[in-house]
Amino acid sequence: MTAKPAPPHPAHVSADALFAGAEADPELSPAQARELEEPLRAALLKAQYARLQRPERALLVVIAGLDGAGKGATINLLNEWMDPRHIATLAFGEPGPADVPYPPMRRYWHALPARGRTGIVFGSWYRPLLQEWARKNPDQDACDEHVEAIRRFEATLAANGVDILKLWFHLSRDAQRKRTRELLSDPRTAWQVAEEDRKVYKRFAQLRQAGARTIAHTDAPHAPWLVVPSADAPLRMVSTARAVLNALRRAPAPVRRPAPPRRRIPDRIGALDYEARVGRDEYEDELAALQAGLAAAVRRKRFGKRSLVLAFEGQDAAGKGGAIRRVTHALDARQYDIMPVSAPLPHELAQPYLWRFWRRVPARGRIAIFDRSWYGRVLVERVEGLVAPADWRRAYEEINEFERELDANGALVLKFWLAVGKAEQLRRFREREQSPFKSFKITPDDWRNRKRWDDYLKAANEMLARTDTAHAPWHVLAADDKRLARLQVLRAIVNALEQA
Amino acid sequence: MTAKPAPPHPAHVSADALFAGAEADPELSPAQARELEEPLRAALLKAQYARLQRPERALLVVIAGLDGAGKGATINLLNEWMDPRHIATLAFGEPGPADVPYPPMRRYWHALPARGRTGIVFGSWYRPLLQEWARKNPDQDACDEHVEAIRRFEATLAANGVDILKLWFHLSRDAQRKRTRELLSDPRTAWQVAEEDRKVYKRFAQLRQAGARTIAHTDAPHAPWLVVPSADAPLRMVSTARAVLNALRRAPAPVRRPAPPRRRIPDRIGALDYEARVGRDEYEDELAALQAGLAAAVRRKRFGKRSLVLAFEGQDAAGKGGAIRRVTHALDARQYDIMPVSAPLPHELAQPYLWRFWRRVPARGRIAIFDRSWYGRVLVERVEGLVAPADWRRAYEEINEFERELDANGALVLKFWLAVGKAEQLRRFREREQSPFKSFKITPDDWRNRKRWDDYLKAANEMLARTDTAHAPWHVLAADDKRLARLQVLRAIVNALEQA
Repeated sequence: MTAKPAPPHPAHVSADALFAGAEADPELSPAQARELEEPLRAALLKAQYARLQRPERALLVVIAGLDGAGKGATINLLNEWMDPRHIATLAFGEPGPADVPYPPMRRYWHALPARGRTGIVFGSWYRPLLQEWARKNPDQDACDEHVEAIRRFEATLAANGVDILKLWFHLSRDAQRKRTRELLSDPRTAWQVAEEDRKVYKRFAQLRQAGARTIAHTDAPHAPWLVVPSADAPLRMVSTARAVLNALRRAPAPVRRPAPPRRRIPDRIGALDYEARVGRDEYEDELAALQAGLAAAVRRKRFGKRSLVLAFEGQDAAGKGGAIRRVTHALDARQYDIMPVSAPLPHELAQPYLWRFWRRVPARGRIAIFDRSWYGRVLVERVEGLVAPADWRRAYEEINEFERELDANGALVLKFWLAVGKAEQLRRFREREQSPFKSFKITPDDWRNRKRWDDYLKAANEMLARTDTAHAPWHVLAADDKRLARLQVLRAIVNALEQA
Repeated sequence: MTAKPAPPHPAHVSADALFAGAEADPELSPAQARELEEPLRAALLKAQYARLQRPERALLVVIAGLDGAGKGATINLLNEWMDPRHIATLAFGEPGPADVPYPPMRRYWHALPARGRTGIVFGSWYRPLLQEWARKNPDQDACDEHVEAIRRFEATLAANGVDILKLWFHLSRDAQRKRTRELLSDPRTAWQVAEEDRKVYKRFAQLRQAGARTIAHTDAPHAPWLVVPSADAPLRMVSTARAVLNALRRAPAPVRRPAPPRRRIPDRIGALDYEARVGRDEYEDELAALQAGLAAAVRRKRFGKRSLVLAFEGQDAAGKGGAIRRVTHALDARQYDIMPVSAPLPHELAQPYLWRFWRRVPARGRIAIFDRSWYGRVLVERVEGLVAPADWRRAYEEINEFERELDANGALVLKFWLAVGKAEQLRRFREREQSPFKSFKITPDDWRNRKRWDDYLKAANEMLARTDTAHAPWHVLAADDKRLARLQVLRAIVNALEQA
C-alpha cells in the first residue's frame, strides 16, 4: 500500500509496480470492516488530541488520485471519525481573480493550519503538474520546474513544523467506471458525479502514468506518498484512516538539505568607507531627481506586471526609518505597504517563520517595504539564541528559495543593509536620549544589542555572504552620512527598476 | 476649526459657516511654527506610547478633503513626528478584482488596526458618497443609504474599541490653484500633482458643497469631523497634529443607540414539540432528495451572484456537527468553508468582536458555515459575565445591522437554533462518555453549562426575540430526534435558495 521511495532515476519507475496492489481492487468484508472501525476511530481521536495538547507541529494531508475514486466521500467520513473542529478542509479550484496577482503558492501559505491542527488539501499544488503530465505531449521543462518548486516548498514546510502526508486514491479502470455508473444510475446520488469523473476511464492510461511520474518525482521521507486502494469503500476508509493515524503519531522525518558550504566570510560591513559624505545642496538636488525618477518608474504601465519588495536591515539607529520615508515620499500611498517587523505574535509563532512574510507578498503592480524582515531568523534569532543552530543554518537556503520564488513571479527584490559605525551609533543613541521627540527610538534593547556588536556583525556578514544572490541582491551601505545612504538606496531602486 | 454637530435638518447646513475659517487661508509665521512644533511632537509621542502601554482602544484617522490640499504631505510628516512603527497608513484605491466579490466595507475591517495602534485611512468609505454628491444631479436615495451605512459602521466601531477622527483638508479655490501651479512649475515636484488636483478649481463649488453635506450628515460625537485649514503648510501640520493629539488623549464619547425596547420574551425554545419523530426510511429518502436539491441549487449559475451564510447555534450535544455534515455532504469541498468558533485568540481580542466574523464573510458564489457564531456575544459571553451588560445589550442591534449588510450584498443568511431537551441532553452526555470515539465531545465545560441551563435558555430566547429578522431568519428546531432536525435544516436551506 505504501509507495516506494523515489529511486535515483525516477523516470524509470514502473507505474505497474506502484499501482498493482490498488488495481487488484482489494476488498474488506463487512465483518472485517466493523472489527477495524471502532479501535481505529478511538486511536485517531486520541492521536489528534495528543497533538492538540502539545501543539508542536501541524499536519497537512494532500488528497490526490483518480477522479471518481471516492476522495470526497472518504474525507467527509474522516471528518466524522475525527473531531472536525480541529481539521480544516482546504479545497482549491482553479485560481480566481483574487489569486491571479500573486505567486501561485501564496494561497496555500495563507490557508496553512496552525501547529497542533490538521489541514486536508484538495486541489493542491500537484494539480498543474498532474494536468501537464497527463497531456499527450507534456512540456518536460515545465514539469521539471514544477517538481523542483514542489520539492522546495514541501521541504521548507517540513523543516518548519508541518508534517506532510500525500494520498493517491487509485483503483482499476473497470472499477472506476463501475462506481461512476452506479452513482449515476440513482437520481439521489447522480449529482455526486462530476464531469471529470466520467472522463477518467477514457484517459486512464495517461492519468495513471501522470500519477506514477508525479509520485516518483516528489516522494520524500519528510513528505511521503501513499497509494490508497479505492474500489472498496470500507477498505478505502480504513486505509486512509490508518495513514492519517500513522502520520499523527510519527516523529517527523529529518529534512535532508546540504549544509551550507564552509567558506571564509569576508567582513563586507567592516570594509565600507564610513568617511564618505555628500553636501547638502548636492543631496537636495539628487534626492529630488531620484524621487522623480522613482515616481515615474512605478507609474509606468509595465510596472503593473511586476512588483517591488524592499527589505531594510541594519544596526539600530542606522537610519532605516529615514531612508524608507525618502522612498515612500515618491510613492502614492495607495501603491505601497510598510511592514514594521518585530517579534512574532502568538498566532504567528504557531506557523513556519516565513508564513507572516509570505502572506504580505505584494500583488503585481504594488510595493511592499519591510522595516526589518525575514532576515531576523539569521540575525536576532541567531544571536539571541532563540532558535537552534540547525534552524538558522538551514534558513539561508530557505530564504534564498523564498526570494527566488518571488523573483520568478515578477517581483523585484532589493535588500539593504544600512551600516553605521560604532562611534556614530553611540553619538546617535546619546542624541536620541536628549531629544524630546526621539527618545522613544532608544530602548534598553538597543543598548543591549550594542554590547553584542561583534556577534551581530558576524551574523550580518555571514548573512550577506550566503544570501547575496543575483535575483535578490544585497546593497551594503555605510550610513554614517544619512544623506549619502538615502541617495544610495534610492539610486539602487531606480537603477533596478530601469534595468527590469 | 471644529465642525458643528449635525443639526436636525442637515440639508440646511451652510457650507460657508463650515469652511469660512479655512477659506480665509490663515497662516503661521515661521517663528510661531517653530515654537509650536517641538512640544507638539513630544506630546504626540507621549500620548502614542501611553496608548500602547494600555492598549484599550484603536484610533482611526480618516483623511478627506479637497485634492491638492496637501493631505499626503501632511500624513508623511505625521509619520515622521510620531513613531511610524505603530501607525499604519491604510490607503485604498478603487476596489480591485480581489474586492469585488465581497461587501464593500470588508476591506476596511480587514485593515483595522489593533487596540493601542493608529490607522490613517486614505480612500475611505466616504469616497463613493463624496463622488455622488459632487455630481450635477446626485442620486439622493443612494446618498441617504450610504449615509446610513456609514453611520452604522462608525457607531459599531466606536462602541467596540475604535476611536474615530475625521479630517477635512480645506483651503480657498485660489490657494488650491496656486499650490498646484507651484508644484507643477518645478520638475522636481511636478510628479506630486495628481490628475484630480488639477481639476479641483474648476469644480470647486460642487466639491465644497459635497464636503459640507457629507460633514453635516455624518458628524457624530463618537466620530467627529474637523476642518483643517490647508493653505499654509505649517498651520496645516500643526492643526493635524493637534487634532490627532486630542483624539489620542480623549476619553471615548459614548455611542448613543436606542436601548432595545422592553418586551415580553416568549419561550420559543420551551414551546417546541420535542416528541416529533421521523422514521428511518422516510428520513433516508427525504435526506437524499434534499441533498440532491441543495446540490443542484448551489451549482446553478445564478447562485454565482449570491452567497450563503449559515450559522448554527444550540445547546451542547444538540447535534450541530451532524447537521452540518449532512449539509456539506451535498456540497463541493471547493465551494464552502466551515468555521468552528471558540474563544477568540489574543490577536482577535485586540479587535471589535465582529472583526473575526466579518473577515470570514463568503465571496459571491461561496458558502460559509459557522459552527457557533457571532451570537456568542449574547449567549456565552453574556451568561458567563465576560462582557458588561451594556455591551451585550447593544450587540443585538449591531448583529442585526451586520446581517442586514450581508443581505444587502447578496448573502442569504440563515440561522439555526438546535434545541435539545434537558433529559435527552443528559442521555447524550452519558452516551458520549461511554463511547471510545465520542468521549472527546464531552468536557467539564459541557457539564458546567448544563448547570446554567435556565440562564442559557433565557439568553437564547431573548436572542431569538431580538434578532429574528426577515433578512436573516432564525429556524428554531427541536433536535431530540436528530434525523428530523437534519431534515428541517436542509429543507429550510433548500426553500430559501429556491425563493431567492
